[in-house]
Amino acid sequence: MLPGTGALLRPFSPSRHAAAINMRHSFPPNRTRTGTDRMHPTTPYYLIDKSKLLRNMETIARLREASGAKALLALKCFATWSVFDLMRDYMDGTTSSSLNEVRLGHERFGKETHAYSVAYADYEIDEVVSHADKIIFNSIGQLDRFADKAAGIVRGLRLNPQVSSSSFDLADPARPFSRLGEWDVKKVEAVMDRVSGFMIHNNCENGDFDLFDRMLATIEERFAPLLKKAEWVSLGGGIHFTGEDYPVERFAERLKRFAGDYGVQVYLEPGEASITKSTTLEVSVLDALQRQEPCRGRQLHRGAHAGPADLSRERQSVAECRPASLHGLRKVLPRRRYLRRVRFERTN
Amino acid sequence: MLPGTGALLRPFSPSRHAAAINMRHSFPPNRTRTGTDRMHPTTPYYLIDKSKLLRNMETIARLREASGAKALLALKCFATWSVFDLMRDYMDGTTSSSLNEVRLGHERFGKETHAYSVAYADYEIDEVVSHADKIIFNSIGQLDRFADKAAGIVRGLRLNPQVSSSSFDLADPARPFSRLGEWDVKKVEAVMDRVSGFMIHNNCENGDFDLFDRMLATIEERFAPLLKKAEWVSLGGGIHFTGEDYPVERFAERLKRFAGDYGVQVYLEPGEASITKSTTLEVSVLDALQRQEPCRGRQLHRGAHAGPADLSRERQSVAECRPASLHGLRKVLPRRRYLRRVRFERTN
Repeated sequence: MLPGTGALLRPFSPSRHAAAINMRHSFPPNRTRTGTDRMHPTTPYYLIDKSKLLRNMETIARLREASGAKALLALKCFATWSVFDLMRDYMDGTTSSSLNEVRLGHERFGKETHAYSVAYADYEIDEVVSHADKIIFNSIGQLDRFADKAAGIVRGLRLNPQVSSSSFDLADPARPFSRLGEWDVKKVEAVMDRVSGFMIHNNCENGDFDLFDRMLATIEERFAPLLKKAEWVSLGGGIHFTGEDYPVERFAERLKRFAGDYGVQVYLEPGEASITKSTTLEVSVLDALQRQEPCRGRQLHRGAHAGPADLSRERQSVAECRPASLHGLRKVLPRRRYLRRVRFERTN
Repeated sequence: MLPGTGALLRPFSPSRHAAAINMRHSFPPNRTRTGTDRMHPTTPYYLIDKSKLLRNMETIARLREASGAKALLALKCFATWSVFDLMRDYMDGTTSSSLNEVRLGHERFGKETHAYSVAYADYEIDEVVSHADKIIFNSIGQLDRFADKAAGIVRGLRLNPQVSSSSFDLADPARPFSRLGEWDVKKVEAVMDRVSGFMIHNNCENGDFDLFDRMLATIEERFAPLLKKAEWVSLGGGIHFTGEDYPVERFAERLKRFAGDYGVQVYLEPGEASITKSTTLEVSVLDALQRQEPCRGRQLHRGAHAGPADLSRERQSVAECRPASLHGLRKVLPRRRYLRRVRFERTN
């Protein structure tokens, strides 16, 4: 059993040659933003290591080359336009999930610009269309409503394969009564005069190629009649192909085979995969409290709402059990772990 | 088994005589904010029903009267200053968890202004002190660092009773290695020359008076020597005393007894309890997809990260199973349920 040491994290002034993204709207009181401050921003801020970002970009480029698939940055995951100049050379464009995202993709990234939303409103459809070269509707209802307004650009439909790698409902199109996309082949066939392709997004943090492969086989089985009529298919994001040991060659071969079997241009929408391990949240330690408890058991008076321990709690406990000596140090934590810690501590 | 109907929710134009808080920064494109628009804001927005808010305020006033406790609005939970005018007459002030919150409390609410933070930075302490009449440090380390700077106002310390009603680690001072407050009586006794009171926050969504009562007994048992030396004790927030059937009289009696036994001024910091059931998120239905599946079983390809079903997923499933006919209707949903739905649907 190790003694526990915890750290409370807040502003400090580091410096490092990289794209530093400050999360605050303004600097601390009585300080002005000068040339010096720009090189020494106040913590907390995200630090993007361009050399690491480049490594992901090179993997994406290799995959595009080997598979023939196009890669669109998913802005919903990463929208930091200060590094779009670098990313643009390695990717085919962007995809979006709202009006403001499609506008960002069009104005700041350029190249191909896909538009998707779970539902567009009347007031925004014209502006969406003005920024996109392809629009993907979530339902036949939305297609019926806006097909004419979008007649000048490529139109598509989201399909729901009713299988998914997601482990939480939030991102799971396979959950009961999911409304993310159409699933009835007959109904979709009836609107093929108005769409030329499909988007299928059912991967989420999926680092398992074999799982991807099996799900794609299910998609082929269920939607073959539609795929044969399509010109393009986007397989969405959530595929962790820039992760360590991911079999990029097998993945490329599978995409190429899929494209060949149905005569379609394949798209991928990497979000997290574009930026894997390229970014840290830089923080500072303001205080430390020592506690000598072991990492087992605890005395709690649970309320009526107490539920069973869930996965995130387990992860948190593991993080908490790590010994650390943070007093007086600036500490660079991976983004997710940091957020978890801070959210603990900011609760009073 | 009922057929499922889902709704995708976005802007619409309702009207209602209440404080309407729009969540967008700007109105849809090509519309300007006119007098008419202010009465018909674009969804989504929060609608605060002042008559319902008043009901909570009256409960708070009744509790203050019966118990002698003071009630401070927890700005971390609710910071909508458009209704502070109404709330100010029924509460004693505000409490905060950051520099900007204490400033908001001071400038917009007035009356007593408590400052707390898990850790203050050097650059912000002076401004915090300038806005507060009482500052509560999270640790003896922070007290040592800033006691002199805060010598002009009342100073206190957060105590960690190591029991809690929280069902998630996020808000649980009783979790292993929690750094929310001091727990060693001897160490705290040694700094009593610099503090005159304590804050203890270990309730979280606690609607069970008996649980509160038991935990307060534990606090008394553990911290009696400290409580006897204190002039004031804040028992924090998270006590759901404005909920239906909460025994407000017993609660008031318990607080009064606690205050009398130790000769302290008791504070409460109601956040959610101040606004219980007063506010809805007004939304519009843009599209509906019908699915005929029953609410049981599902075919999933689970990834390596799949965890056990957790409480929130169960709640989500229940929400999803409700039959609804939302097509073309404006629907007013309680805030939490709505957020859950929308977060589903905005995932592509």
